[in-house]
Amino acid sequence: MYDLNKSEIMELFHFDTATRVISDAYVASSIGHVQTGDVVHLRFPESNGDCHIKSGHIRHTDTYVVKIASGFYDNPSNGLPSSNGIMLAFSATTGELVAILRDEGWLTDMRTGIGGAIATKALASRNAERVLIIGSGIQARFQANCLAALMPEKSFNFFIWGRNKNAAATLVEELRGHNLNVDLALDLNQQISLSDIIITTTPATSALFGDNLVRPGTHVTAIGADTHGKQELPTSLLESASLLVCDMVSQSLNHGEFQAINDTNLSKKVLELGNILSNSCVGRTSDNDITIVDLTGIAAQDIAITKGIIDAAALGKKN
Amino acid sequence: MYDLNKSEIMELFHFDTATRVISDAYVASSIGHVQTGDVVHLRFPESNGDCHIKSGHIRHTDTYVVKIASGFYDNPSNGLPSSNGIMLAFSATTGELVAILRDEGWLTDMRTGIGGAIATKALASRNAERVLIIGSGIQARFQANCLAALMPEKSFNFFIWGRNKNAAATLVEELRGHNLNVDLALDLNQQISLSDIIITTTPATSALFGDNLVRPGTHVTAIGADTHGKQELPTSLLESASLLVCDMVSQSLNHGEFQAINDTNLSKKVLELGNILSNSCVGRTSDNDITIVDLTGIAAQDIAITKGIIDAAALGKKN
Repeated sequence: MYDLNKSEIMELFHFDTATRVISDAYVASSIGHVQTGDVVHLRFPESNGDCHIKSGHIRHTDTYVVKIASGFYDNPSNGLPSSNGIMLAFSATTGELVAILRDEGWLTDMRTGIGGAIATKALASRNAERVLIIGSGIQARFQANCLAALMPEKSFNFFIWGRNKNAAATLVEELRGHNLNVDLALDLNQQISLSDIIITTTPATSALFGDNLVRPGTHVTAIGADTHGKQELPTSLLESASLLVCDMVSQSLNHGEFQAINDTNLSKKVLELGNILSNSCVGRTSDNDITIVDLTGIAAQDIAITKGIIDAAALGKKN
Repeated sequence: MYDLNKSEIMELFHFDTATRVISDAYVASSIGHVQTGDVVHLRFPESNGDCHIKSGHIRHTDTYVVKIASGFYDNPSNGLPSSNGIMLAFSATTGELVAILRDEGWLTDMRTGIGGAIATKALASRNAERVLIIGSGIQARFQANCLAALMPEKSFNFFIWGRNKNAAATLVEELRGHNLNVDLALDLNQQISLSDIIITTTPATSALFGDNLVRPGTHVTAIGADTHGKQELPTSLLESASLLVCDMVSQSLNHGEFQAINDTNLSKKVLELGNILSNSCVGRTSDNDITIVDLTGIAAQDIAITKGIIDAAALGKKN
């Protein structure tokens, strides 16, 4: 049984392996090979917190995974991070506990970053250079770093726009420290109309920018919307896009970015990322397509990234 | 953070404390003070296994609890127990992990045993002496031991009936080793008609005994039915009973013993144990009542027994 804390997990983590297994997990999910438990949501209004429990199993794999992730939003005022999390892996043959990964939410942040990077790589135009990231929180960091790591052959020019200018400026400096080519975006609408790739990472509940600003050829990866009532993109953009893709149709239409088009005919056009990755559905067909991916996060990603850590730990034990 | 294995948990466990906190938890549940997450059910048909995830929080208490319990029914042929389980407690103020209890399912067995004993004590006739336990598995043991421990002033005469005569005989010997007064029951129907208390602990999917055998004054505690399609008692017995009680009405009618009367007028008569324990509903009114309790198991029990262990661990640390 492995019992690993965050720094041990980060030590065992390998980006290329994680990217490969998460990509495979999207494909497994889209062909119906992933059993996903209903998401449990507990609420703690008195302490401004909540907890989500996600669980699942990828068919023919060794372990099933239960993830317990919480957000207690008054924690920072007490010097604690607001997010917390733990992943548990159990044998799918005997039910025995295989691993406790006390990652404090880091694996979720990373698998979300990797998921966004996989989606962006799969759907952005080959010529894309200019990447606008909206938001300056944890996922803004992970999306920029993961995309740069997944596509090292590209020399992206990142622009960061955030409502909080100080936080955005801090992020610009931080990413420059990672040798990324990054600038602060001042005029959001102007940046929208100049970008090849737009990645939204905010908790917004209405469109972050206006209609008709996104130019042909742009790819948009929407990360933020993950509950009822959240929305980052103008609905008109969904209507005018050439391609709508998500990680899991049922989640995206229910509580993701595509809830805005649930119950419309457009909802029937939404594809899953796994089907694009496996080439069973066609992705971008021209450099003029506007493509949109909405990622709500699926248990298959948690299972995959956890398996990567366990395998690495097992390998370390053998050596 | 406490990380305790089964033997450490058993060392810290205190029966009287657990009984008190579980009794309080039934009351809290029945007055709406328990937030219960939807039960998650994962299935592993290839290895004849399944996993349940239960979670919840009792209002105004320090921790919320997530329980992951599995049954892999081919394990015994490989020398492993079929049941497995782990309880996790998190701070309801910050989300931080407070305790990992690797109880291997023992706390669930114990809280189920204690729940049955509390229900039986609350509803059986004061003069009850003769206790029939149907089944010879884990819960047959826990129900007998917990009832004897909860009511030490009574000198119950226990009878064990099981389809597997060898397992039943083994259990009789085992319980005698605990200084209980126990006999093997050979004729089930005869024993039914002679018993003051009947406790059913089987995975049966149809009535274990015939109509009109239970005599006036008998109390029945039904433990076995916990999923769709399970049933231990004849429906006629539910119809003729003076009192129908369960741990949680929604669970009992949906997947417990009382699913047989779901959608009937009788379902409206079902009370909750917490309301009996708090005296807000009347329990047994005469020595001729037939009373029935169905227990499907509720998250509040898990939270309570976990809290008992954590408090004991904290006390041990202080001393």
